[in-house]
Amino acid sequence: MKALLIVAHGSRREASNEEVRALGEAVAALPDNAFDRVGCAFLELAEPSIPDGLLQFIEAGATEITVAPYFLSAGRHVSEDIPAEVDKVKSAYPHITVRIAPYLGASAAMPALLLAQGCAC
Amino acid sequence: MKALLIVAHGSRREASNEEVRALGEAVAALPDNAFDRVGCAFLELAEPSIPDGLLQFIEAGATEITVAPYFLSAGRHVSEDIPAEVDKVKSAYPHITVRIAPYLGASAAMPALLLAQGCAC
Repeated sequence: MKALLIVAHGSRREASNEEVRALGEAVAALPDNAFDRVGCAFLELAEPSIPDGLLQFIEAGATEITVAPYFLSAGRHVSEDIPAEVDKVKSAYPHITVRIAPYLGASAAMPALLLAQGCAC
Repeated sequence: MKALLIVAHGSRREASNEEVRALGEAVAALPDNAFDRVGCAFLELAEPSIPDGLLQFIEAGATEITVAPYFLSAGRHVSEDIPAEVDKVKSAYPHITVRIAPYLGASAAMPALLLAQGCAC
């Protein structure tokens, strides 16, 4: 069973966390979504944490989990903090495959998305 | 003359600011880019500031400027701080049209982009 965990920073502003959860639902509903489950987790300030998000998937039967960092730049959160959180669970479940996808800002499609936003007003 | 100003938060990590500048160059180079100029500005921690970015365009002859917030959530930076910075220049140049585009995270194409990132590893 394949699962996708969207990982955002988390905010004191609950509406921002809700935006991420709604995005997760929108990803799950895409017609070309090949993941059996899609969920969200947060590095800090909101629930579930990254380990809790991974554990929920593992308890539901996930065997392959992709972590997708919803971050625009490759700062310490992306390069160190998210891998460290993932490793907490990975080491306890060596039979589960957990991959970390490239962070969002690294997408080759980002320039086109940004240009489209610039033309949207 | 139409210009697009990509506005990011700005970071103490110079590589993150360089990422934004490289993104601006990538947007400028897109074959369907209809803006005469594309540039970047930062809310804080990096140069140019938003007013300086706007003024550079105005001095170069821009008459229509679109500000595209490179932000994932609609927090105070997007709802208050960026409009306040834009207004500093807008009020002094009433003959220039300055629009603020929807922030990046609001893009209808975001779920598909995130799914593609999740499949990229």
